[in-house]
Amino acid sequence: VRRTYRTTEESRTLLDVAAGRRPADLYLDGATLLNVYSGELHPACVAIAGGRIAYIGSGRSMIGSETSVLPLAGKIVAPGYIDPHAHVLALATPVEFARRALAGGTTTLFADTLNLMLLTPRHAVVPLLGILSGMPLAIFWLLRLRSPSPLPDDSAFTLERFQDLLGVEAVRGVGEVTHWPAVYHGDGDLLGKISLALAAGRRVEGHAPGASGDRIAALAAAGWSSDHEAITPDEVLERLRAGVYTMLRHSSLRPDLPVLAAAVTETRALSGRFMLTADGSDAVTVADHGYLDHVIREAIAAGIPPVLAYQMATLNPAAYYGLDEELGGIGPGRRADIVVLDDLRNPTPEMVLARGTIAARDGRCVAEFPPLDWPQYFPARLAPSWSPDPALFDAPISGPIIHLENSVISRMRDVPVPPGVEPPPGIVRLALLDIEGRWIVRSALSNFVEHLGGLASTLNVAAYPIVAGQRPDDMAAACRRLARLGGGVVAVERGEVVIEIPLPLGGIMSAEPFVEMAAQAKRLYTFLRKHGFSHADPFYSLLFLNNDSLPDIRVTYDGVWDVRRRRVLAPRQDLPS
Amino acid sequence: VRRTYRTTEESRTLLDVAAGRRPADLYLDGATLLNVYSGELHPACVAIAGGRIAYIGSGRSMIGSETSVLPLAGKIVAPGYIDPHAHVLALATPVEFARRALAGGTTTLFADTLNLMLLTPRHAVVPLLGILSGMPLAIFWLLRLRSPSPLPDDSAFTLERFQDLLGVEAVRGVGEVTHWPAVYHGDGDLLGKISLALAAGRRVEGHAPGASGDRIAALAAAGWSSDHEAITPDEVLERLRAGVYTMLRHSSLRPDLPVLAAAVTETRALSGRFMLTADGSDAVTVADHGYLDHVIREAIAAGIPPVLAYQMATLNPAAYYGLDEELGGIGPGRRADIVVLDDLRNPTPEMVLARGTIAARDGRCVAEFPPLDWPQYFPARLAPSWSPDPALFDAPISGPIIHLENSVISRMRDVPVPPGVEPPPGIVRLALLDIEGRWIVRSALSNFVEHLGGLASTLNVAAYPIVAGQRPDDMAAACRRLARLGGGVVAVERGEVVIEIPLPLGGIMSAEPFVEMAAQAKRLYTFLRKHGFSHADPFYSLLFLNNDSLPDIRVTYDGVWDVRRRRVLAPRQDLPS
Repeated sequence: VRRTYRTTEESRTLLDVAAGRRPADLYLDGATLLNVYSGELHPACVAIAGGRIAYIGSGRSMIGSETSVLPLAGKIVAPGYIDPHAHVLALATPVEFARRALAGGTTTLFADTLNLMLLTPRHAVVPLLGILSGMPLAIFWLLRLRSPSPLPDDSAFTLERFQDLLGVEAVRGVGEVTHWPAVYHGDGDLLGKISLALAAGRRVEGHAPGASGDRIAALAAAGWSSDHEAITPDEVLERLRAGVYTMLRHSSLRPDLPVLAAAVTETRALSGRFMLTADGSDAVTVADHGYLDHVIREAIAAGIPPVLAYQMATLNPAAYYGLDEELGGIGPGRRADIVVLDDLRNPTPEMVLARGTIAARDGRCVAEFPPLDWPQYFPARLAPSWSPDPALFDAPISGPIIHLENSVISRMRDVPVPPGVEPPPGIVRLALLDIEGRWIVRSALSNFVEHLGGLASTLNVAAYPIVAGQRPDDMAAACRRLARLGGGVVAVERGEVVIEIPLPLGGIMSAEPFVEMAAQAKRLYTFLRKHGFSHADPFYSLLFLNNDSLPDIRVTYDGVWDVRRRRVLAPRQDLPS
Repeated sequence: VRRTYRTTEESRTLLDVAAGRRPADLYLDGATLLNVYSGELHPACVAIAGGRIAYIGSGRSMIGSETSVLPLAGKIVAPGYIDPHAHVLALATPVEFARRALAGGTTTLFADTLNLMLLTPRHAVVPLLGILSGMPLAIFWLLRLRSPSPLPDDSAFTLERFQDLLGVEAVRGVGEVTHWPAVYHGDGDLLGKISLALAAGRRVEGHAPGASGDRIAALAAAGWSSDHEAITPDEVLERLRAGVYTMLRHSSLRPDLPVLAAAVTETRALSGRFMLTADGSDAVTVADHGYLDHVIREAIAAGIPPVLAYQMATLNPAAYYGLDEELGGIGPGRRADIVVLDDLRNPTPEMVLARGTIAARDGRCVAEFPPLDWPQYFPARLAPSWSPDPALFDAPISGPIIHLENSVISRMRDVPVPPGVEPPPGIVRLALLDIEGRWIVRSALSNFVEHLGGLASTLNVAAYPIVAGQRPDDMAAACRRLARLGGGVVAVERGEVVIEIPLPLGGIMSAEPFVEMAAQAKRLYTFLRKHGFSHADPFYSLLFLNNDSLPDIRVTYDGVWDVRRRRVLAPRQDLPS
């Protein structure tokens, strides 16, 4: 696990520039520097060479005839922003996401590998991890230990594969250990992988919503070193006390900073142990409000002192992952990932440098990204011939169904509906389907929308088709259209396709620009709201229908699943071939 | 580079104890916990199993019939102390040093490898590093890049050897890069080794006394991530601003906390980037005042808030070396290295636990240490037959000689003395000698003592005999006695041995108890002071006579050495065999 990727020759160049023996490539002249190390604002020029910071100070001996001098009097320079817990493999590609995030000052992400481990052909995974970590916005990676939804085939998450991927330089840890009760009860596979990660010098980034302070302490004993699931200041304090670094989340799903900020402002906790995360905010929120720039703005608005808010989004995550000599501050030797601000209270930058090159100006990304043949990495999973029969969706509804309490939390509810009858308002039929037509899991969904013909989507945590609706013909029509798109989200009302978001890349992404995907998502949200969706975040409602660790009831490959009691309520049904 | 040495089975045990499924070995009941993570004092019990902390909180379900319950109401429990920059291979053995340090609450050291790289037989180095890292007081290691004094043979510091040692798990970095001007000027050997260390995930712990802020920035660009040589608050701030972690030193040689504390109390710097170090305080200081307990006490006395002072000596060094999940706090999963205090303002503990076992009580070490056959690791270097002729010491004194300005800084002075004449008061002859009698380097020393027959010592940074005195017969007699001891420090006055400190282990250590060695050192100091020594730290005056990076003039294998101009003032002379 490298602390920095500097080579000897790079160090020599930086030294020579710092000592005035060699001209800098770029000289940032006259700005005020937000020094996250000393916690101050102070005047300092910055000399850059080979994409790294060679020098900070008032010296000018490294300005040569080839040096570009950027006059920045009156401006503030701050380190590029770092998200310690990101999700970048849904809707838009990581490249298109990166363009948007970079424009708002985010230069590094530590991101979930779920969709990549699940959907990318095995031989292409390591090359892709490497390519994406080398982009102008660098993505480091956090391995998943297990699928968040049962799969017919667990070969994506074997111990052998985990060990191989741990050896990849851009992999900095384990992320999103959603099965925390299994860890708590001593699951051998999970504990073994966690120990391997620790022995390889990697962090284990946990995920323990709702865990008590005592359970957090137990999980810390097992190797958990951070968590992003605190939703009250007390939960923040419980994590800190157990030695767990705490990410304060402000996402589309959980915009919690106004509540969590008190944990920072009212405790005397070491500020180095707090971080900020956008935790996979949906595309519409990111398009409309920004990414980490938005989160930092909200942190300041919630009362966190501005310098500390920036530290929580720069130095602290870099230090957590052992990369504080490479990232996270405007310090000699570090990557020249720098934002130029007009005002410390406005984190949306006028200009962004990524590795010493201008990457964005006035909110527009100008960085060059590697061209990628995306279908090679995320092949379509649904064949055009996939076409479930409408009769499949006309089974009786019986037993507990899924009542959506909010965007993602569900409760059990009994609403029997016989076959051949359209469910009452507020109830839609729900099915999880095999991509080769071999099986189906049937349930129903309450308090999702009032009325819906048919909606089919592969945008969920196992990229399997999930179909909802009240009219079997519309449901089947949505499936047919979905198959033709190779995956995505399709809504059909009385035979007419009214919404379609093509996601041909593995059923979860499109190569279209980020703003276009956000606009498509917005049209879907509008459609759903018009049909009665009343929760905060429709994106996550769809995404998590098959997530087996969110209370209380889900549709999974194992059947309709009782999350708390860990039992199948209604098994999956095999279909005749 | 492991983040923790926990195995899967250990994690399982800890989890089981935390969850009340298995009894703890030890339960610390009713104390107030100094929580270095959250920066608070709060009531919390601590459950320990297998030498690690399994749980903190108020739960009692892990108390079983086999659990020892230690009632600690009214007491404070705090993490064991960690020195990020230690020297443990001089005078007493690391084991005897560890007994003393442990009694005062220090449970982990990151220590200099110089004497080990220099004096231990090659095949024995890796095993010894491992054994010493596994003691009740754990010693992690920092590699030297180069000898601090020129040697006839540089094979101890080759790139190949450096690479091999970097691979040792207990090696956590590079330490004490004394040749900072060479790094600044781009020395290829040093830059190459630094890059290798960074690529291996190790820290580069610098040493840049007197470097300006601009030079500190350049050294940071080359991979320097910490420094312990700031002697003013401004120098502390310069280091912080350059992204360099800063160790505040309070040693026998430089008891600087009263001055440096202002950098902590008057800046808004991230507290996580400060550490405390005793930087190899001499044995007498440690025996009389304690080790890190003394430094913490001085930090509090200097105005550093107590909780922060403890953080600087526990969590911060652990985090700097990437071991914050293993060390540095009373948090689940960590080694149960714990001190029991009566009062936060008195860091000298009533009891010390090392890996869950009582290691010291009321200032007495009761821990068991591995028996070590020291001569195997540090063979004697001087043969009993080594016997320089008195005539060797009767050469004329000419050219610049070494005028001691304080304990360790010297200036040039001209005091010609013809042969056959006793030098005037305040001037002593000085010689550095080969252990096989093949060469000699001659100079003289001013402002060391007023009068001295002969003093011979191998207690210096190359473990070569250095002889000082005014009377050639006494100087030769001291050498003869020194040879018979196999190394050490011997003083002779008019033919009589008046001081002798046998250091048969490599000429630099004895296996005697620490207090005995401190008593011997004190007798030497008293002798020197009686003879006119007026500086603060006689131990370092002797140790550094041949250190080639301390201003201004030294005796080295290359000859009498002008440190600033890097040139030989008087060459070494070959002797007839």
